[in-house]
Amino acid sequence: MGLLMDKSALAAFLQAEFQQVADDFTVEEVREMGILVRLNVDDRHLRPGGTISGPSMFALADVSIYLAVLAMIGPKALAVTTNISMDFMRKPAAATDLLCDCRLLKLGRSLAVGDCLIRSEGMEAPVARASMTYAIPPE
Amino acid sequence: MGLLMDKSALAAFLQAEFQQVADDFTVEEVREMGILVRLNVDDRHLRPGGTISGPSMFALADVSIYLAVLAMIGPKALAVTTNISMDFMRKPAAATDLLCDCRLLKLGRSLAVGDCLIRSEGMEAPVARASMTYAIPPE
Amino acid sequence: MGLLMDKSALAAFLQAEFQQVADDFTVEEVREMGILVRLNVDDRHLRPGGTISGPSMFALADVSIYLAVLAMIGPKALAVTTNISMDFMRKPAAATDLLCDCRLLKLGRSLAVGDCLIRSEGMEAPVARASMTYAIPPE
Amino acid sequence: MGLLMDKSALAAFLQAEFQQVADDFTVEEVREMGILVRLNVDDRHLRPGGTISGPSMFALADVSIYLAVLAMIGPKALAVTTNISMDFMRKPAAATDLLCDCRLLKLGRSLAVGDCLIRSEGMEAPVARASMTYAIPPE
Repeated sequence: MGLLMDKSALAAFLQAEFQQVADDFTVEEVREMGILVRLNVDDRHLRPGGTISGPSMFALADVSIYLAVLAMIGPKALAVTTNISMDFMRKPAAATDLLCDCRLLKLGRSLAVGDCLIRSEGMEAPVARASMTYAIPPE
Repeated sequence: MGLLMDKSALAAFLQAEFQQVADDFTVEEVREMGILVRLNVDDRHLRPGGTISGPSMFALADVSIYLAVLAMIGPKALAVTTNISMDFMRKPAAATDLLCDCRLLKLGRSLAVGDCLIRSEGMEAPVARASMTYAIPPE
Repeated sequence: MGLLMDKSALAAFLQAEFQQVADDFTVEEVREMGILVRLNVDDRHLRPGGTISGPSMFALADVSIYLAVLAMIGPKALAVTTNISMDFMRKPAAATDLLCDCRLLKLGRSLAVGDCLIRSEGMEAPVARASMTYAIPPE
Repeated sequence: MGLLMDKSALAAFLQAEFQQVADDFTVEEVREMGILVRLNVDDRHLRPGGTISGPSMFALADVSIYLAVLAMIGPKALAVTTNISMDFMRKPAAATDLLCDCRLLKLGRSLAVGDCLIRSEGMEAPVARASMTYAIPPE
């Protein structure tokens, strides 16, 4: 199919449309049907004890699959999350960025499905996994 | 079984242990195996267009089931979210608090399971549903 | 909205379209946006030790939400399961039918979402919960 | 960690403990923290039109992760499914076996988490994905 948006186009889209959270995320790699996104961990993502909050990991998974979809279909469409399932498996490393490796498993006309593994940078064992469905409205 | 923490005890626990987010939430009602929690909607919960962000709804579901567990087992235990599944079904009403009505379906020694419906205040049709599992570590 | 199919219409539909499994299920009650369905437990649903198999509970949840959708939209449409999330919480009672109490939370033009609680007949505590999404193809 | 059960040990275990369904499945490959399992598709797995039923795919995912856990911890333990989330993404090919490629993401003392992709034999695009949690009781 080919990519319609590259790393810099996705970053510019985030800054333009989601200014509030754009600095939280860095697109590390984008490929056909997949993406790697970094959560730039900051105090606002932490819980007491230094662990990264569940909502921050949710946001990372959500934005990653969203950007993976946009990379394939372009910025014109408004995809809406309809379902997410997440397993939290290990405590993230303290004060360490998270990396979210995401793949699209289906990119249909009206539904996209993807999953991702979230790891603390430098660690092999995943912290969390997520699968998500996006509804893609007709143009 | 009986409640071990009431509304004010839960609110004090949130302020002491989760100061960063405590002002986001108000415990409206607590009962055996259930709770009603309000998300005090503010600019930081919004996405462009005024809709409430997915991570904010995740946080509301997560804190609600967590507090419902604590109300039953007391503040001494550290419950950890291990799984969440959410369906996002309707757009929340603009600039309106969310109410999360949560029930515990299982409260075992090591696992608790609950689900909840999230509604915009004053609306009957739910905005989202969530089910969650918490691991309760041995004392 | 009103019901387009009642108990006997749903039972006849099951016999006509899903003859292979129709005898497994009895529609006990049908109401707007909800249904109660019985799994007529038989040897083929059991695992060693007499417990009811996971796939049998999956089938019960799946058929229940499917029939709840058909009761509202009529037999003409072909709904397809796109997502299911289930929690298995307790061991079912031995040699006892299961009852699945299901409610539709959303019935849109293209997506329906419902959840259900499965109990052993005569027991209050639920054995399992499920939430499901169905895609409703355009006519 | 090393494998405690190989293909033939897993097959023998299925025949001894789950005789009712053992012929449905063939263990194709087993590796550390992963397995490939075939559903030997037969009339009893089909729905009208020749498509493979949802419960059959659920059973395939469930048995695959179960066997992947047993391969690592041995036949002595009784793992119980506590959660499953599945996305059904494409119609399976007619009259074609399914292959379920499963990996364990976590294998803790009390909880195991895995996910899998289900494909029609000979097709690249996945038919379904599943993630599952198993509770491993203390010995």
